[in-house]
Amino acid sequence: MDVQELHDRGLKLRVDMFGREAVSKRMSALGDFGKPLQHIVNAYAYGDVWSRTVLPPATKSLAMIAMMAAAGHANELRVHLQGALKNGCSADEIQEVLLLVAMYCGIPSANEAHRVAAEVLSEGR
Amino acid sequence: MDVQELHDRGLKLRVDMFGREAVSKRMSALGDFGKPLQHIVNAYAYGDVWSRTVLPPATKSLAMIAMMAAAGHANELRVHLQGALKNGCSADEIQEVLLLVAMYCGIPSANEAHRVAAEVLSEGR
Amino acid sequence: MDVQELHDRGLKLRVDMFGREAVSKRMSALGDFGKPLQHIVNAYAYGDVWSRTVLPPATKSLAMIAMMAAAGHANELRVHLQGALKNGCSADEIQEVLLLVAMYCGIPSANEAHRVAAEVLSEGR
Amino acid sequence: MDVQELHDRGLKLRVDMFGREAVSKRMSALGDFGKPLQHIVNAYAYGDVWSRTVLPPATKSLAMIAMMAAAGHANELRVHLQGALKNGCSADEIQEVLLLVAMYCGIPSANEAHRVAAEVLSEGR
Amino acid sequence: MDVQELHDRGLKLRVDMFGREAVSKRMSALGDFGKPLQHIVNAYAYGDVWSRTVLPPATKSLAMIAMMAAAGHANELRVHLQGALKNGCSADEIQEVLLLVAMYCGIPSANEAHRVAAEVLSEGR
Amino acid sequence: MDVQELHDRGLKLRVDMFGREAVSKRMSALGDFGKPLQHIVNAYAYGDVWSRTVLPPATKSLAMIAMMAAAGHANELRVHLQGALKNGCSADEIQEVLLLVAMYCGIPSANEAHRVAAEVLSEGR
Repeated sequence: MDVQELHDRGLKLRVDMFGREAVSKRMSALGDFGKPLQHIVNAYAYGDVWSRTVLPPATKSLAMIAMMAAAGHANELRVHLQGALKNGCSADEIQEVLLLVAMYCGIPSANEAHRVAAEVLSEGR
Repeated sequence: MDVQELHDRGLKLRVDMFGREAVSKRMSALGDFGKPLQHIVNAYAYGDVWSRTVLPPATKSLAMIAMMAAAGHANELRVHLQGALKNGCSADEIQEVLLLVAMYCGIPSANEAHRVAAEVLSEGR
Repeated sequence: MDVQELHDRGLKLRVDMFGREAVSKRMSALGDFGKPLQHIVNAYAYGDVWSRTVLPPATKSLAMIAMMAAAGHANELRVHLQGALKNGCSADEIQEVLLLVAMYCGIPSANEAHRVAAEVLSEGR
Repeated sequence: MDVQELHDRGLKLRVDMFGREAVSKRMSALGDFGKPLQHIVNAYAYGDVWSRTVLPPATKSLAMIAMMAAAGHANELRVHLQGALKNGCSADEIQEVLLLVAMYCGIPSANEAHRVAAEVLSEGR
Repeated sequence: MDVQELHDRGLKLRVDMFGREAVSKRMSALGDFGKPLQHIVNAYAYGDVWSRTVLPPATKSLAMIAMMAAAGHANELRVHLQGALKNGCSADEIQEVLLLVAMYCGIPSANEAHRVAAEVLSEGR
Repeated sequence: MDVQELHDRGLKLRVDMFGREAVSKRMSALGDFGKPLQHIVNAYAYGDVWSRTVLPPATKSLAMIAMMAAAGHANELRVHLQGALKNGCSADEIQEVLLLVAMYCGIPSANEAHRVAAEVLSEGR
């Protein structure tokens, strides 16, 4: 497969998951300086890894939420919470992952993640 | 509910997930010094959070794997990989989570987690 | 002991440490979504671990400050700096812990923690 | 060498790298509470480690950027990006380090670092 | 004060805390390559920060244990557990800090730290 | 460019940097389970990011060492220390980066990294 195809497949999946407007905004936010990183995101993260089909998108989203909460990446957590809602995860499912975060990453990581999740959930209504 | 019931419910779930022998070994490994921590694990982690039923155990296991790989907890990752196999996760599903780890936590975290997973998978055969 | 008693004992200790208003605000901030996490905080963190009496509360607060600064949890650090003042820690004692942070977790972690501590100390006057 | 000399040598280097105004502001920002930490920064970080001459300052700056992006220290990353520009690093060189961050620390760390870098680069023009 | 005095004061304190043999072993373990780092440890960490007298050594040791457990530095945790015993901390006091680690850094960090602590405590008997 | 070309270019660069034997060993270590991750390493990390030519390989290696020491990835640090020697970095240059690690990530991270570096340097002789 050509790398350009990988990129385009990834971009399409990313737009399906977050909406065209949000993706356009993120892709242009850092101008030329951000282009090689956006290529990594589109071609390698979405065009390759996210395009795998063994797990349903909702399960991948829950794994992403667990990962981003564990690593303390609040901005990225917000993005993947939005993706989780789009992929069909419920508030209760998200909550259950974040309670595992409380016990296995500690209360402060869970507090931070709950705060972001409560915001995304209220925007999503 | 009494705290003792919470503990017993958690211990039962933990034994179902990892086998009686493995749990006994972990519970006694640190003697009296480890008892209050084992109480936290049994009563609060398994008796409360793991006993919630919104998500299927396999999905929780995949979230745990994502979390432990992100946080670099190799020993705990091993334990929850064993739990994942018990909860019905396949090698392909585990692999797909670990490829998300590669892109979102970096190649070294994914390398480490793959190494542990390959060991657990070969023991599990 | 009943879990409800554990919760109530923890909530009482938490209110003693941070004041009723601050605790009410935190407990209701995330509505129903935050309830299970608040239960973990009240019953397990304060009702169990913080209720242990081997160490004086001031020493536990200094350990908490060390831990939160090491983990980079700025919001939780703020909360536990407020608790430290309530538990009788002085600015000089807090400073001495944060200088250990500088040498053992690095200057950036210490910078961040000093910034939060300077704010909490000036509010506390 | 006297510790005061170490401090003065470090302070001079720090002022050369960030400008007198920026350093004065940082040194006085936290008043007396911040003084012992500022001593560590001036005497030990700049007076000792940064005063070593095996590596050119630009290379040290790129290593600092890698380190701060990996550790998720956004404020300190901003400071050392400013130092990197002063030490002669180009936007392209900074970008290349941050793409290594993408692959070896994950996309979220690289996103965060790109955001800070894009701001510092636009201020620097 | 001369930097050499700072170094000697630090080395003396370090020897008081860990014993001459252990310190000699650590200081020579990495030969010339390790010398500048050993200077940082002796002069800046022990000669400056540890030489402050606001907090009793036992309290500093408990803060160090909290910090090292939070950051996942198992080797350094071992060293500072040995220092804690020398500084008069009891097993119960160490345990109470590690239970805070369980709730605020998560069960895996507490597990790892308990394992190291149980070893150090059994060696110390 | 075809993805296969990207992969082959990356693999060639990787072999130049670490030797054919070491790369073969790493690529086959985890069998089929490790293949998709090895593709990410070859095609995206080496075929894309490492193949950029703005920075000399030695500078990239020093940035990698800083990054891996900051993140506490001891195994990956070892690999990139070997790459650094191959890319022409001296022991003194590596040491200078690791002293920045001591001040900006803390003494324990620097201790760990020095230990690995001393081993790699003695093997390299």
